[in-house]
This record gives sequence, C-alpha cells and structure tokens, in this order.
Amino acid sequence: MTTRRYAIVGTGALGGYYGARLAHAGLEVHFLFRGDYEHVRAHGLLVESKDGDFSLNPIAAYCRVDEMPVCDVVCVTLKSTENDQLAALLPPLVGPDSLVLVMQNGLGVESQAAQIVGPERVIGAMCFLCSNKVGPGHIRHLDYGSVTLAAFHPDCKPGGVTDPMRRIAAELECAGIAVRLADDLLLARWKKLLWNVPFNGLSVLLNGTTSDIMGFADSRLLAERLMVELADDARAFGRELSRTFIDRMLQDTARMAPYRPSMKIDYDNHRPMEIEAIFGNPLRAANAAGRESPRLELLYRILATLDVRNRR
Amino acid sequence: MTTRRYAIVGTGALGGYYGARLAHAGLEVHFLFRGDYEHVRAHGLLVESKDGDFSLNPIAAYCRVDEMPVCDVVCVTLKSTENDQLAALLPPLVGPDSLVLVMQNGLGVESQAAQIVGPERVIGAMCFLCSNKVGPGHIRHLDYGSVTLAAFHPDCKPGGVTDPMRRIAAELECAGIAVRLADDLLLARWKKLLWNVPFNGLSVLLNGTTSDIMGFADSRLLAERLMVELADDARAFGRELSRTFIDRMLQDTARMAPYRPSMKIDYDNHRPMEIEAIFGNPLRAANAAGRESPRLELLYRILATLDVRNRR
Repeated sequence: MTTRRYAIVGTGALGGYYGARLAHAGLEVHFLFRGDYEHVRAHGLLVESKDGDFSLNPIAAYCRVDEMPVCDVVCVTLKSTENDQLAALLPPLVGPDSLVLVMQNGLGVESQAAQIVGPERVIGAMCFLCSNKVGPGHIRHLDYGSVTLAAFHPDCKPGGVTDPMRRIAAELECAGIAVRLADDLLLARWKKLLWNVPFNGLSVLLNGTTSDIMGFADSRLLAERLMVELADDARAFGRELSRTFIDRMLQDTARMAPYRPSMKIDYDNHRPMEIEAIFGNPLRAANAAGRESPRLELLYRILATLDVRNRR
Repeated sequence: MTTRRYAIVGTGALGGYYGARLAHAGLEVHFLFRGDYEHVRAHGLLVESKDGDFSLNPIAAYCRVDEMPVCDVVCVTLKSTENDQLAALLPPLVGPDSLVLVMQNGLGVESQAAQIVGPERVIGAMCFLCSNKVGPGHIRHLDYGSVTLAAFHPDCKPGGVTDPMRRIAAELECAGIAVRLADDLLLARWKKLLWNVPFNGLSVLLNGTTSDIMGFADSRLLAERLMVELADDARAFGRELSRTFIDRMLQDTARMAPYRPSMKIDYDNHRPMEIEAIFGNPLRAANAAGRESPRLELLYRILATLDVRNRR
C-alpha cells in the first residue's frame, strides 16, 4: 500500500487538526489556507493537543488550489456556509481516482460535493472533535477526535462498508485517529444532528457552554426535548435513534469538559453560523416527510434572525 | 356619584402612568413607591406622554402601605414577579367594599390576589400600554393606553359585565383612558397573551424591538407560529381566537413605533422577568388540558435559563 496524497480544503480548527495528525504520521498532506497562509509559511502549524502537542514546520501550505497537486483523498473541511466555493475549489484537486471526504456538519452536505465531483467518489465523515482555532496557525485540540465514515448514495440508501472507506480508515488510524465505519450515512448524519442541533443552537441562545446547558434543569430538558423530536424526525426516514442513545449522549455531554461549540464561536466572532446545514436542511427534510418539528423550526428561525443581526 | 379613592400598588411605568392620569383628572389617588419615594416627594411625578406631558407635584406618595388609607379601588400594578408581596400589601388597603383591579400581565394573576382578598372583589385589567420608566419619577408614555376590564370568577366562567366594572370604567374614561368591558376574563387574558408571549419572549431572545421582530421574515413567522399555537391552546379551554384576530394583531404591531417590551427592559436591567405569569402559567394550563405546546415550552425554558443566568 503506497502512501497517498491528502488535501485539506480549509485549514481551520477541524481541517488543521486532522491534516496535521496525518502529516505528523508521515502522510503527504497539502493544506489550503486563507488568512493564515503567510503565518504558517513562516512559523508552521502548531497543534496543542490533550494527547500531546506537536507542530508542522515546514508545511505544504497553499493559498490557491491551482497550485496544489491532484490528491487521492480530498478532505472538505470548510464550514458548510462556504460550500458555494466548492465548485471552484474541488475540480483542480480531483483526478479520476480521487475520493472526496466531506468532513462537515449537518445534513445534505455530501450532495453539494457530489453535484460537483460525482456521487460515486463521495464519502461522508462525521467528526466527533472538540477543537478550536485559538490564533493564526494555532489549533487547540480539547477532547475527542474520532471520525465515522459512511459512503454517500444519492438515494440515501445504506451504502455499506466499501474498500475505499477501509483504506482511508487505515490511514487515519495510522495517524492515531479513531475511526468507525458505518454502513448508513443518513443514520450517522441524524445521530450527529442529535448532538449538534441542541448544543450548537442552545449555546448561542443561552450564551453558554455545554456545561452551562447541562448544569441547569430547564436547559437540560430543552436539549432532551429537542433530541426526542429529532429522533422522531429520523424515524420518518426509517432511521431509529433509541432512547438509550439519547440518554447516553446527554450523559456523555454532561461529563465533557465545558465546551463552546463551533456555532457559538462563530457567533461570538460575528461570522456566519452553519444554520442551513445543521437546522435548515433537517427541518426541510422533516417538513417534506410531513413532520412539523416545531422545536427545530423555532430554533432555526431564531438563529437565522440572530445570524443576520449579528453580521450587520 | 362621589369621587372614590384609588391606590396604586407599585408606581412604575404602568402604575405611574394610569395613576397619574387619574390624579391629573382630579381623582384621589394614593401611590405606593419604593426606590423613587424620596425623589417624588421632592420633585413630583413627571409623565411625558404622546398625548401631552404633565406632572403631579405634590403627590400622595407613600413608601409603606400601613400609612395609606383604605381605598375603594386598589390597583395592583406591581410586576407579577413580586406577587409574593401581595399578602402583606393588600390587606391594609382593602375595606369591606373595596375592589381590587389586577393590572398585570399573564395568566392566573387574579387568582393570586383573590386568595388574599376574596374572589368577589377582584377584577382583571388587561392594559394595552407602551410606556417605560426612564428615570426616577419619570415615565414616558409612548403609545396606546386602553384598558379592558373583566370580572374574575374562580371557575373561569365568563363573569358578565357588572356594575362595579362600569363604575371603574366611567372613572377611567373621565381621566382620558379608553376602556373596554369584557364579559369573559379568560378569553381576554388569552388575547393579551397572544401578543405578550411572542413579543416579550422574542425581544429578549433576538435582542430587538417589535420593529426588529416584524421587520425580518423569519422572526415575523416565529411570532405568527407562536400566536397560532396559543390560539390552539385557548381553544382547549373553549376560547376562540380567530385567524383574523391574529392577522390584525400582527399588522398593528408592524405599524407600531419600535417598542422595547417590558420583559426586554427587565432583562437589559438584570431584573427578574415575568416568565411564570406570561409563559409558565399558560404552559402548565395547556399541558393540563393535554396540549404539548412545544413552541411555548421552548420559549419558556430558554427564558427561564436566561433569567437565572442574567441575575447572577
């Protein structure tokens, strides 16, 4: 098995972390930067991690995709709010045998990549990672880090576990990243939403961390009620998220170190929030399946309003 | 018809406005103050009003109820968050023929007064008033000002229009206050909630005025969806709030000068918000009638969490 080339399309808290892990393990990784480009050319990329700090210097950094090579695995690690750029960013990196790993939050994000590069090469990646970008070329990995891979199919049927998934998994594991292989992307996406919807949304509305949300009876109940409603939404698509799963997710979150989810960080920095991918797309899917999903809708419209007001 | 004595129990933006109007028209009005007492003894009470400014100086101001006389009409104009004080405040003011006018927001506020003074003397008053207290002894009346009166009955049956209601209405009208007489307190309370729930709640969550809420499609739709859910709640109690009523209330609010509702002002000043009266009591009533009311519940629990965090 020869070493393959990885591209990191968007080197922030998530892309920077995973890309740096892969490069640190000896894989060939090409990083697309924006604002931090000059800084990392001069100083490299620093990862402060609960598993041990390390840095990459020199680093294969780029600020334009047309200077990057075609890669075997193209990791989409932009925020989903920037997916209108994918039509320009992906084609130069994708050759006949390239795979595209969509490491984003939300529902329907793989479809956006698939429309550009074709569905057969798209793999969804659910990243369970607590990391923040704390400065130029400076990433802080707080907790977790595992990745769940699942093959994309345009009709949302379970795609099974494929050889390309296994090969990526092996490479990620070589780099110390825990990987799960899932045979049903849609189920995996709803499982992830079950956390992202309450904790991203409520952290913004309540101006708090995961610990603040879990530490107060009313907000903990809010998170739980949202999870139950989302599980009912997922059931409308034949995906079962059990009560046990909800309880375990609540317990795990209560045990986590206080965490400011990415949406809260975006809000605090007056950046666009990933509202459509995490709230809008699931709501529209649920509505299309005949479900009202009033809690999700309320959260969605409150956040959509706050987002516009916050960026003015 | 002899002039009667009025007591204003809580001289803030609302009690100060209505009490001052009555006193300005020549009625005998006794005002209970707290922090502003020394200021109004020295400088009087100033009302800046869209209908013309006026002031009361001297003013029958008190800081203790046991120095106030028994009154014919005792106006409860405290915030409902302070209703635990009513057991101490009302008895010294109430004689055998006194009436108690509950001029508060929310559901179930008359019951609290009725438990202290007996149900037969309690009248509910829905106040449609935009006014703020802008400084010590200084009230700014921005818009509206009408009052709807309705008799309280412990069993929530329509109480009809009574002579005591008519007499209060005549006195208020003499003071330039428009009055409507309603025969069904519960219907009138739900009608008022239909405005208070969305606009008080969303003004806090969205950090905006009524104009901000009505000026953006998502938040306007939020207000509308909340109103529809509340109308369904009211229907569970046999009270019909029509779609036409909802549309008119939305249109009227869109036409209003930008207004910061009282709950938003309380929040901005780190004071307790009237969450139980406006959100908690209607939610518990709806739940008891077998309705889930998910939007109301979500708003209630978000606000309850914010309230605790805001007052720390």
